[in-house]
Amino acid sequence: MEIRCLKNLEVFSNEKLQKINLFETATMFTDIYCLEPGQEQRAHSHADADKVYFVLEGTPEVLVGNELSEVESGSAVLAPAGIEHGVRNASATRCVLLVFMAPNPNRR
Amino acid sequence: MEIRCLKNLEVFSNEKLQKINLFETATMFTDIYCLEPGQEQRAHSHADADKVYFVLEGTPEVLVGNELSEVESGSAVLAPAGIEHGVRNASATRCVLLVFMAPNPNRR
Repeated sequence: MEIRCLKNLEVFSNEKLQKINLFETATMFTDIYCLEPGQEQRAHSHADADKVYFVLEGTPEVLVGNELSEVESGSAVLAPAGIEHGVRNASATRCVLLVFMAPNPNRR
Repeated sequence: MEIRCLKNLEVFSNEKLQKINLFETATMFTDIYCLEPGQEQRAHSHADADKVYFVLEGTPEVLVGNELSEVESGSAVLAPAGIEHGVRNASATRCVLLVFMAPNPNRR
């Protein structure tokens, strides 16, 4: 059985946001994103794929369309297909997010 | 922006496991499952859809294929398309799981 203990997989780098893949199939991928203070995933969009961010730790700013919100640990955000989205750690502490995307754009 | 604070959405029932939808699109759904002690989602499978369980609270038993494991809070499990899977709360305390599924079998 494929079990992933997320805490054991977290990796941070002073260079940039770290993405760690948990699972990847034809239909989806599941990653964690680890952000030091000041790091970000720049705004971008995927024509056909929906993304869900779930905040595990910290309080990142999440952009969806033209809305930017601080999202607290324990909350989830939908970034629908075709809509610009991104995440930024404007806080003084680390942020970790669970990220789910479907379908998997790497398999198309 | 569609933000869901999961703690505010948890619902438990003495009758059966409660599923609360967070997001639903053509490509995926995101739910939380809330299980009182003794409750379960019976083993079943989806021919074409992959599921990810992420344990938010408690220590449920997760079945994938013929493997059954206790999965701790903070860990994720993949139930691949076509493989029998289910979840059971055999513990004495409540369990809450975040569940992603792609594609969305309700939209096919």
